[in-house]
Amino acid sequence: MKEVKIGLLGFGTVGTGVYELLEKNREVIKERIGLVPVIKRILVRDPKKIRSISVSPEIFTTSFEDILEDPEISIVCELMGGITPAKEYVLKALQKGKEVVTANKAILAEYGDEIWGEALKRQRFLGFEASVGGGIPIIKTLREALIGNQIRSIVGIVNGTTNYILTKMLEEKTDFKEALREAQKKGYAEADPTLDINGMDAAHKIAILASLAFGSFIKASQVYVEGIENIDLIDLNFAKNFGYVIKLLAFAIKHKNHIEVRVHPTLIPENHVLASIRLNYNAFYVTGDFVGDVLLYGLGAGKEPTASAVVSDLITAIEFSFFKKKPFIKYPLTFDKKRYKIKPMEDVEFKYYFRFSAVDKPGVLSKISGVLGKYNISISSVVQIGRQKKKQAVPIVMLTHEAKERNVLKALQEIDSLEVVSAPTKKYRIMDLT
Amino acid sequence: MKEVKIGLLGFGTVGTGVYELLEKNREVIKERIGLVPVIKRILVRDPKKIRSISVSPEIFTTSFEDILEDPEISIVCELMGGITPAKEYVLKALQKGKEVVTANKAILAEYGDEIWGEALKRQRFLGFEASVGGGIPIIKTLREALIGNQIRSIVGIVNGTTNYILTKMLEEKTDFKEALREAQKKGYAEADPTLDINGMDAAHKIAILASLAFGSFIKASQVYVEGIENIDLIDLNFAKNFGYVIKLLAFAIKHKNHIEVRVHPTLIPENHVLASIRLNYNAFYVTGDFVGDVLLYGLGAGKEPTASAVVSDLITAIEFSFFKKKPFIKYPLTFDKKRYKIKPMEDVEFKYYFRFSAVDKPGVLSKISGVLGKYNISISSVVQIGRQKKKQAVPIVMLTHEAKERNVLKALQEIDSLEVVSAPTKKYRIMDLT
Repeated sequence: MKEVKIGLLGFGTVGTGVYELLEKNREVIKERIGLVPVIKRILVRDPKKIRSISVSPEIFTTSFEDILEDPEISIVCELMGGITPAKEYVLKALQKGKEVVTANKAILAEYGDEIWGEALKRQRFLGFEASVGGGIPIIKTLREALIGNQIRSIVGIVNGTTNYILTKMLEEKTDFKEALREAQKKGYAEADPTLDINGMDAAHKIAILASLAFGSFIKASQVYVEGIENIDLIDLNFAKNFGYVIKLLAFAIKHKNHIEVRVHPTLIPENHVLASIRLNYNAFYVTGDFVGDVLLYGLGAGKEPTASAVVSDLITAIEFSFFKKKPFIKYPLTFDKKRYKIKPMEDVEFKYYFRFSAVDKPGVLSKISGVLGKYNISISSVVQIGRQKKKQAVPIVMLTHEAKERNVLKALQEIDSLEVVSAPTKKYRIMDLT
Repeated sequence: MKEVKIGLLGFGTVGTGVYELLEKNREVIKERIGLVPVIKRILVRDPKKIRSISVSPEIFTTSFEDILEDPEISIVCELMGGITPAKEYVLKALQKGKEVVTANKAILAEYGDEIWGEALKRQRFLGFEASVGGGIPIIKTLREALIGNQIRSIVGIVNGTTNYILTKMLEEKTDFKEALREAQKKGYAEADPTLDINGMDAAHKIAILASLAFGSFIKASQVYVEGIENIDLIDLNFAKNFGYVIKLLAFAIKHKNHIEVRVHPTLIPENHVLASIRLNYNAFYVTGDFVGDVLLYGLGAGKEPTASAVVSDLITAIEFSFFKKKPFIKYPLTFDKKRYKIKPMEDVEFKYYFRFSAVDKPGVLSKISGVLGKYNISISSVVQIGRQKKKQAVPIVMLTHEAKERNVLKALQEIDSLEVVSAPTKKYRIMDLT
């Protein structure tokens, strides 16, 4: 049976997973595709490093050229991560006429125009399923299954670490720090979890999905981002009393001439299917003009799920390579950079959840609501809890009707400078997803 | 731009939807694939029939040969439904060297070996995304996204009508008949809803998915089926008190040397994501050896979602046709009919929910539990509600530990013939999905 040769760049967690998958499921893959994918070379920094699996040492190399210049290797699989030298290697492989599979969200969210552009120009397949959502086939779904649709919106829980933390806080009434420590202990959060917690990881992913869905390149830096670093258990509890769950959501929404791309903690109704996505699971809620609402859910990270996505792309790459076929579906490679403007966050309207820290004095509520009224923000519910200890600040929680973010920012600035307000107001946006 | 010509068989709801999609989204599709899909001919029974959309009359034909013998038509799209003549037309089109797309679950669930076999022999693409799950890309996910995985199980809510009825009953405390009437009024149930209600529609779909996942042709008639026609509101309520939701689930589960394929109402924990699938939505919960658990959710029927799935397949068919490429991924076309045995239902073990209708006399519980003990069925919880009216039967609800279906059938037969039992016992299986 004919072998197809693959060059692997990087042999960390995901690379090991891909190697193990191709070993373990060799027979079923042979049967399904009629060809044998073989990893011929692996680029590593240190070929002598002790590894968890045994691989014959002669397939390791420290030189990218050994893979790039090998005419037998028709597919390059980049699993190194980071921008340098991954981006350069991906571009060089495409220029050399190889099909490329990558799991690298950073290079796509920051240099997607250049990389997708190169793949299009060279008529090569560029697979990036594993860059977003681990084993969940969100890229294939957008690129192929929904190809007949105009995508209206994507709403996603795209970061497992933060979803794990929020789930633990809500269900076990632990605070943020304790939930984070547990996530680290379970291996769901890195030693330095900054990029997960502050929403940047999610921003990278939604930038890729928005580019794909709307055919307009969105850079990660264009995404409005708020993380969960300042989330308090008290707000999860208040939200629950109002029938909401707080999730870190990523949004990509298309309007007539502009799009919204943003990541922030959001209150969603507790009976919405996204509210039931627990622990380190990810989910993508996609709305298209014909398909309606579709949700994809699964493990968004981890060795095995990510390997599953990489191998799916490798097999498509093999197909292109073996049949010397041009990549047929250009989507999302066809985009015109300037097609859509991104709507400034201050122009977007939301319903809001506010928690004011007010001094327990007469007239406080009237002062706060006076400021809100001045900025045209109307209140739909209020909960005020009586003082717990003398002179302690009292939480006042309000839900509002739709208001413009700009007005809310101004109103909160004014409210937070009132003498009767003792700490900055907490503000969360509400999405009444149906 | 080059046109690719399609012949449509049937112009009912789905056919109209496909036509409308290709009209409305012509520009985005052109941009994404660089070709223009054109419906050249449509096979109908009555070309003069008044239709909801205006189509130039000369493209209608009443003769299949006009499509089959047209060398310009490279793709045949079968949307007539039913076995005869759909099956014959699909086979003839494949034999003629055309790529085929079909939304017809009946021909695949009953003659899949013949049809898939023909596609494989003729090296043609056979698309059937729309045969299961409407707009949800479950076929593409199994066939391509999870191609590196060995699939362990699929658990699905695969029929929207029954899910709508169960949701309405539970949430609005209506009885079965009223919920069915509402489903019919909303267009979610047919005038004759028999095949939905009795589980046969679900059996067709899980037969196709099991064939695909396990590479072993499963006929609809090999699926164990129970419908929801006898479901009572009281059982939905009791189940809820125990923390469960009753759903009509379809299962395809692989063991070492045999598989289970079955459809029946099932108690699942209310915090499982499948429990949150409401109304007429469908969902597929797939477990693979590398990907772990993946869930796909969306509208499993309807004009627009189904058209979305058909068009996705049409574009793959165009790709194969245009590049004169052999279908690369044979999966699921490679199966050997006899690879797996189907486990007889009586050999499967479940936890059970029983509702006994007992006469309110001393010693009843002891008689019933005596019979259960004799058949090795051990009880995990019991609820007995005091008599409501004199001489009325009293419901006794029990949950059991794992027991073999065969033993349960014997025990219930014995219990139902006791003098103190006034009506047949209701029995539902419990799945503690995690």
